[in-house]
Amino acid sequence: MSGREAEAQWVDEVSDGERRFGVLASRILFDAPSPFQQVTIIDSPALGRALLLDRLWMTAEKDECTYHEMIVHPALVTAKQIKRVLVIGGGDGGTVREVLRHPEVEHVDMIEIDELVVTASREYLPTIGSAWNDPRLHVAFVDGAKFVEDAAPGSYDIVLIDGSDPVGPAVVLFEERFFKACARAVGPEGVVVTQGGSPTAQHEEHVGLIRTMSQVFSHVAPYYGPIGIYPGGAWSWVWATSGSARPDQPIAERVTRAEATSQYYNGQIQRGAFAVPNMVVRALEAK
Amino acid sequence: MSGREAEAQWVDEVSDGERRFGVLASRILFDAPSPFQQVTIIDSPALGRALLLDRLWMTAEKDECTYHEMIVHPALVTAKQIKRVLVIGGGDGGTVREVLRHPEVEHVDMIEIDELVVTASREYLPTIGSAWNDPRLHVAFVDGAKFVEDAAPGSYDIVLIDGSDPVGPAVVLFEERFFKACARAVGPEGVVVTQGGSPTAQHEEHVGLIRTMSQVFSHVAPYYGPIGIYPGGAWSWVWATSGSARPDQPIAERVTRAEATSQYYNGQIQRGAFAVPNMVVRALEAK
Repeated sequence: MSGREAEAQWVDEVSDGERRFGVLASRILFDAPSPFQQVTIIDSPALGRALLLDRLWMTAEKDECTYHEMIVHPALVTAKQIKRVLVIGGGDGGTVREVLRHPEVEHVDMIEIDELVVTASREYLPTIGSAWNDPRLHVAFVDGAKFVEDAAPGSYDIVLIDGSDPVGPAVVLFEERFFKACARAVGPEGVVVTQGGSPTAQHEEHVGLIRTMSQVFSHVAPYYGPIGIYPGGAWSWVWATSGSARPDQPIAERVTRAEATSQYYNGQIQRGAFAVPNMVVRALEAK
Repeated sequence: MSGREAEAQWVDEVSDGERRFGVLASRILFDAPSPFQQVTIIDSPALGRALLLDRLWMTAEKDECTYHEMIVHPALVTAKQIKRVLVIGGGDGGTVREVLRHPEVEHVDMIEIDELVVTASREYLPTIGSAWNDPRLHVAFVDGAKFVEDAAPGSYDIVLIDGSDPVGPAVVLFEERFFKACARAVGPEGVVVTQGGSPTAQHEEHVGLIRTMSQVFSHVAPYYGPIGIYPGGAWSWVWATSGSARPDQPIAERVTRAEATSQYYNGQIQRGAFAVPNMVVRALEAK
């Protein structure tokens, strides 16, 4: 990509000898460096508007629902209480949009390290971040790992970690110290969910994350869903608690409500998504 | 692609303004037209050896297990009897390899319309088609739809349809007439499974296939899994019977055996894969 051009041009994610996904972009709407990364928003017939960070696909209008529904609802339908929610990352606004669909949620803190992601997303991705003006939402641009370290014990019911992959600014969000801070922040009945990478294309990192979280929480369960713009086809999230909530014991009323507005998520997916591929089962057993 | 070259080159699947998947190919091993389609086999660091038909990704060494395990085991662990199996298509040999892992299988007919796919796959993809010499396997190069029409009623326990997408030679494999012939060929307790396309990138075709099969079989259940080289991330298959078998009532001994050699499939996946995404549920309800 080389700036804003009138001509259609290919925008590809290229890594490890794969063109993992590319679209013919009709316009580059935004392309600028922040202190953390290159922030790019394109428009395209295939995906609609889409956000790239450092030339990696993050989200796109025609593909975003699965990711945002899946990082949010499995935690919010299972935790005993969901009044206070902390979202780390998630600068495009899709995760907080799904959180705020639950009327029991009274207060959401969204902590995004890179203000430019939010500024650009608010301007160019309004269909993804459609809840910026909800009075329950409080956005701050500080370091998420440090914010969690400093949070009062038990000050949240839920922590959702919607960071990028374990390279660059997001690497601390995959470390044991960070999850210990999350466990303190949510208290004994809280639920923590993080994006967990690709179980195939990022197999080692995925398995390592599950092991790290298992050092901190008494019940850890990876779950899976398809994201067309991410490498490997399958994506994962990891659900964790040291309390009594369980993925297979959702609160039915909340599931029904989440289904009403979801493109991908529903009660069947809540049960089915926690099936772990055999290659991950084997890797965890081989510990 | 332009023949066999020593230089690394990009091989992409390009369709509808998306470069859906591409790899940096180190070698073009085979590239020739058959009477039906262009048959191409490449080698690449990212995917290993891979087969394309008319420049669409079909299978690749580093990605093939999920597809082949998922088209085979959900049928073979649930049907009452699995002595006689008919495979339509599947010229790379991966599907019959998985079928033949079940020792109850006594006879497999594999009907592939395009002999060149098998000839090229036998030579260049030996790790995918590793069961060509099994004495239970009988391969014929004729039209699969016609073969099923002519099959004696009840002559098979299982029919697996491993065709390409509903364009070109495979289009008849998505029609009601064909499924009626499959239903006759398997008899009242038989199970039929077909590949079902992408629930997102081929949404209309996917929903249409489920509806067509529901005209023919009394119990029809789509199921899902991730295929990184296919568009949309998620792929589907459709399981169907007019008998008493059900996807959630597998025979435990067969599941355990299939798990032993599977990279993706296991008992958890047998339960979880049949969760239907909300967009498909809604489309089927809107009938």
